[in-house]
Amino acid sequence: MAAECPAISETLVRVNYSETDQMGVVYHARYLVWLDIARTEHLRRSGMSYRELEAAGLRLAVSEAAIRFRQPARYDDPIRIRCWVRQVASRKVEFGYAIEHADTGLLLATATTSLLTLDRTMTLTRLPDDVRDALRIFPDPVKLGS
Amino acid sequence: MAAECPAISETLVRVNYSETDQMGVVYHARYLVWLDIARTEHLRRSGMSYRELEAAGLRLAVSEAAIRFRQPARYDDPIRIRCWVRQVASRKVEFGYAIEHADTGLLLATATTSLLTLDRTMTLTRLPDDVRDALRIFPDPVKLGS
Amino acid sequence: MAAECPAISETLVRVNYSETDQMGVVYHARYLVWLDIARTEHLRRSGMSYRELEAAGLRLAVSEAAIRFRQPARYDDPIRIRCWVRQVASRKVEFGYAIEHADTGLLLATATTSLLTLDRTMTLTRLPDDVRDALRIFPDPVKLGS
Amino acid sequence: MAAECPAISETLVRVNYSETDQMGVVYHARYLVWLDIARTEHLRRSGMSYRELEAAGLRLAVSEAAIRFRQPARYDDPIRIRCWVRQVASRKVEFGYAIEHADTGLLLATATTSLLTLDRTMTLTRLPDDVRDALRIFPDPVKLGS
Repeated sequence: MAAECPAISETLVRVNYSETDQMGVVYHARYLVWLDIARTEHLRRSGMSYRELEAAGLRLAVSEAAIRFRQPARYDDPIRIRCWVRQVASRKVEFGYAIEHADTGLLLATATTSLLTLDRTMTLTRLPDDVRDALRIFPDPVKLGS
Repeated sequence: MAAECPAISETLVRVNYSETDQMGVVYHARYLVWLDIARTEHLRRSGMSYRELEAAGLRLAVSEAAIRFRQPARYDDPIRIRCWVRQVASRKVEFGYAIEHADTGLLLATATTSLLTLDRTMTLTRLPDDVRDALRIFPDPVKLGS
Repeated sequence: MAAECPAISETLVRVNYSETDQMGVVYHARYLVWLDIARTEHLRRSGMSYRELEAAGLRLAVSEAAIRFRQPARYDDPIRIRCWVRQVASRKVEFGYAIEHADTGLLLATATTSLLTLDRTMTLTRLPDDVRDALRIFPDPVKLGS
Repeated sequence: MAAECPAISETLVRVNYSETDQMGVVYHARYLVWLDIARTEHLRRSGMSYRELEAAGLRLAVSEAAIRFRQPARYDDPIRIRCWVRQVASRKVEFGYAIEHADTGLLLATATTSLLTLDRTMTLTRLPDDVRDALRIFPDPVKLGS
C-alpha cells in the first residue's frame, strides 16, 4: 500500500452523448457510474487497485447509495468528481462525493455510497488491515444533504 | 385522468445480460433504470402518460434518489418492481419502490426518488391539479431504511 | 430441447427514458441491447435457456455486429424485435433481426450478429448437437442491407 | 476550423466496472459508446466541437454501424481508440476505428460507422463546406473486415 495517501481525490470525465437524455441533460442513473469511476481512482491513488483486490478475492459491493441532484450536467461538459472516505468499519466503507462542473466549479450533485466487503463466495468478510489502513477518513468538504 | 387509480403498481422486467457485471450480479446503477420503468408504468396506470405530460410542457426531474441493495439480482431473473407515491407537494413528488424476485418474492432492494416539476424552460413549476389529484398517496408496504 | 421450435420470434420492449438522448430519439447503442433481449427470448422459445447453457459451460460471445438504422425510435414507443437464425456452423451462429414500431409496423432497423461458441476457458468449442438441432434456419423476412 | 487537422486521432478510456458483464469481459454494446467518444474527440482535434455543430443546427446521426470483436477487453484495461475518416459525401461521413489495449497494443476490435447529416427538423441536409474541408480522409491503418 502507498505510504502517501491522498485524503480526497479528483477525477475528471467528459459527458458523452450516450449519457444525455431527451430532456437535454445527463440521465440521472449515469451519475452512479461516475461515482464508481471516482471511487476506483480514489482507491488507486490510495495505493490500491480494485482489480487486484478483486483478483485477491475481495469484493466491495454497493449496499446503499444516496444522491442529490442540484444542477444538470450537459453534453460535453467537463466534470470533476471529488471523492473521499467518510467512514470505515470492519466490514463496510462509506464514500462521499461532490460532482462539479470542472470549469465553473458549480456543484452539480452530492452523493454517498456504502460498500460491504465480501469474499469470493459473496459472504460478508472483514476488510483486510492493509486496505483499512490505506483508507483515510476525511471530513465532508461540502454539505451532502438538503 | 383515470377515475380508478391504483395506489400501488407492479411492473415486471427480466434481467438482461447487459445489466450484469463481472461480479455475476446486476450492476447497481441499473436499478435506477428499473425505478424509472416502474414509475412510468405507475403514472400510466394512474391515468397519465409521462410522454403526454412532457409533450404538454411538464417535466418530472429526479432531484434525489436513495436505494438500499439487500440481495443481488442475477441474470435472467424475473423482477417485480412495486411502486407507490409517498408524498405530494406543490412542486415535488416522492415515490417509493420495492424490488423483488418475481418468483420467490425475495426483497432485493428498496428505494425512494423525489422528482421536481419543471416547465419547458427547466424552471420549477406547480404540479397541475389533475396530475396531483391522480397521484394517490400510499403507506410504505415495506420498511425502506436499514 | 423443444420439439416445436419457432423459426422466427417476436419480442416486445418499450422505450424507457434512459434509452433516449438529447436528439430526442433512442441512442443507437441501445439497439444492440434490444438484439440481446430478442436473441435470449428466441433461444428460450427454441427450448433453450441461455442461463442454463451458460451454467452448463457454454458461452455465446458476439464476434460481429452490423446494424442499419432506418427510422428513429422514440420515448415510450412500443418496439417489436423479430429474430431468426440465418446460419449455423460448427462454432458459430448468425442471427438476423428486424426492429419495428409495434403499433405501426414501421421498420426502424435491421441487424445481424454472429456469435462464437466458447467453453468456460473462453476457448472456441463446438456447438453441442442438441443446441444445433434446435436452431432452425429461416430466410431473411426483410432486406437487411442498404 | 483548425488549419492543422490530424488525419488519425487517438483517444484513451479506461474500462469501468459498469462496462463488464458476467462473462468477465466488456459487454459488446459498450464498444459503440467508445466509438462515439473517439469520434467526438476526432472532431474536436479536427477543429470542430460537435456540441457547437449541434447548437448551430447540424446533427450527425448514426445510420450504420459494423463492428468486429477480436479479443475481449477486461475490467480496468486502458483502451486506445484510433479513429479516422474513411469517406465523405455530401450528406454522409464514414468513420473507421481500431480499438486496442493501450499498453500491449493488442487489437481488440475494428469498426466503421456511417453518419448522416440532418438539420434541426431531422431532415437530410448537406454537410457544410467548412466541416467537409476539415474532415481529411485517411486510408485504413488496419484491415477492418474478417
